[in-house]
Amino acid sequence: MSVERPKIAIVGAGAVGGYYGARLAQHGHDVHFLLRGDHDAVKRNGLVIESCDGDFALSPEVVHVYNDPRAMPRADLVVVTLKSTANDQFDALVRPLVGENTEILTLQNGLGNEDRLADLFGARRVLGGMAFVCINRAGPGVIRHTDHGIIRLGDFFHTGRSPRAERISAAFNASAIRCEVLDDLRWGRWQKLTWNIPFNGLGATFDLTTDQLIGTDEGRRLVADLIREVIAAARADGVDLPESLIETQITNTTTMGAYRSSMQVDRQEGRPMEVEAILGEPLRRARSKGVAVPILEGLYRAALVVDAARSGRG
Amino acid sequence: MSVERPKIAIVGAGAVGGYYGARLAQHGHDVHFLLRGDHDAVKRNGLVIESCDGDFALSPEVVHVYNDPRAMPRADLVVVTLKSTANDQFDALVRPLVGENTEILTLQNGLGNEDRLADLFGARRVLGGMAFVCINRAGPGVIRHTDHGIIRLGDFFHTGRSPRAERISAAFNASAIRCEVLDDLRWGRWQKLTWNIPFNGLGATFDLTTDQLIGTDEGRRLVADLIREVIAAARADGVDLPESLIETQITNTTTMGAYRSSMQVDRQEGRPMEVEAILGEPLRRARSKGVAVPILEGLYRAALVVDAARSGRG
Repeated sequence: MSVERPKIAIVGAGAVGGYYGARLAQHGHDVHFLLRGDHDAVKRNGLVIESCDGDFALSPEVVHVYNDPRAMPRADLVVVTLKSTANDQFDALVRPLVGENTEILTLQNGLGNEDRLADLFGARRVLGGMAFVCINRAGPGVIRHTDHGIIRLGDFFHTGRSPRAERISAAFNASAIRCEVLDDLRWGRWQKLTWNIPFNGLGATFDLTTDQLIGTDEGRRLVADLIREVIAAARADGVDLPESLIETQITNTTTMGAYRSSMQVDRQEGRPMEVEAILGEPLRRARSKGVAVPILEGLYRAALVVDAARSGRG
Repeated sequence: MSVERPKIAIVGAGAVGGYYGARLAQHGHDVHFLLRGDHDAVKRNGLVIESCDGDFALSPEVVHVYNDPRAMPRADLVVVTLKSTANDQFDALVRPLVGENTEILTLQNGLGNEDRLADLFGARRVLGGMAFVCINRAGPGVIRHTDHGIIRLGDFFHTGRSPRAERISAAFNASAIRCEVLDDLRWGRWQKLTWNIPFNGLGATFDLTTDQLIGTDEGRRLVADLIREVIAAARADGVDLPESLIETQITNTTTMGAYRSSMQVDRQEGRPMEVEAILGEPLRRARSKGVAVPILEGLYRAALVVDAARSGRG
């Protein structure tokens, strides 16, 4: 990012991208939103954020919105918040925004997003992060932020805490976005997968809420055995996660009540499920390291069947 | 059965038992119904059958109904139409009806029902059959029969077509119930499992109708691979089914449209799913013969989780 008024592009400004982009714009950054569905509404009325931390609105004059990336300026920072099911559009949507010194931060779910961005645009500019936030779209151009909001990010190219990760984190923290830099991005990715794989994967495939999954002995055992497989895969991939995470994830999830994971919501609404990023890519990592993950194998195949059936692909 | 007015007991007179029992009573048999939910309604109003083959009703004077098997007479023939999830009640519900020469015909789904009855009451009196019928309960004491109706039955104790199987079949055929005697009951059981395991099992676990399951390449492949496992398990159990059954079952199911299997209906209505008879027992047979059935293994475990979650067991 250059020193003054760096240009920030939000690619795929749904609820997550819209919220974080609005926070950055609220604090004086020059933010450019690429969106599809709500483009006309936001261009006309701006963005409304109903936040547990206080509501705010951005007028149409402040919000720069686009539905074509070729009309956007080159960015100093591109924040990717597309669903990972749209990753085949990276070249069309991101390339027009990338200049010599552009950095790219993906806040998408799962594994493989940074790799794909690195293949297309060079690893040296890629960072990844995880957004821990409860947020949804309340209407056209209206985003409802109900809880949490921290981002944990890390460098994809450099191991350890890189200066640019620290710089981006500082910009976020100065914009009312709590942000932490990870010592190891892969650690963060695998750690989050110990939740996402069982609760998104099983929840969407069986159409069960988190409390239904862990409300019975059979369900808790399956969730625990699946997390154990994820921990084994992570270890083979160089990330050491403690076995105690099994109990921690289950216990923490108990407090969430009848929670529908994002993939279960996608299933119920007939939208594509993030099967590859959350299940397929971790499975392929495990296979490539020779780690046996039979539950994940079966779950991946099952999720593909459900996804194809529910999103109407033939 | 004795020669004149043999006593027939229907144990678990839901839609299937109610329909076939009513047909037998309609044709002059002495039928005694054991039922729970609709006991009072049937005792008061009799049974109403709305059938694609012509409606008929049985007045309360003709229908003998009970809610306690100990109040029932010994039967010459006991027809068991309980859900297999209630098989732990065989001793309480069936034993009071069994005399020296009583025969027991189970029309339940899946594997293991005859074995359990044989363990309790002696193999020499046990027969099994499959009802191919579209039927449901339209209201208290009202049964709606919409299509088909054939029963295929066979002897559990004797191999080949036994005289008593022929005798019972003849009684059914004389009562407007189309009935065929099987050369090999096990053949019939495994043949039906090549449909029930994929379409009840996957349909209930993923909450997908038959057309959703086979409407995509991913789904058809999974169904086909699962049927292939069932055929391998059947062969190891001594039943030779042709590989062509894979295509036949899928093609025939295409004509059924958006059909909800009985286990999917049970799931949706929060009733216990017949996981053990349809998935668990076939899996245990395969295991005992050393046949690898990885998809069935995963499906069984998944179905147990869904069943526990949906039927509210903790």
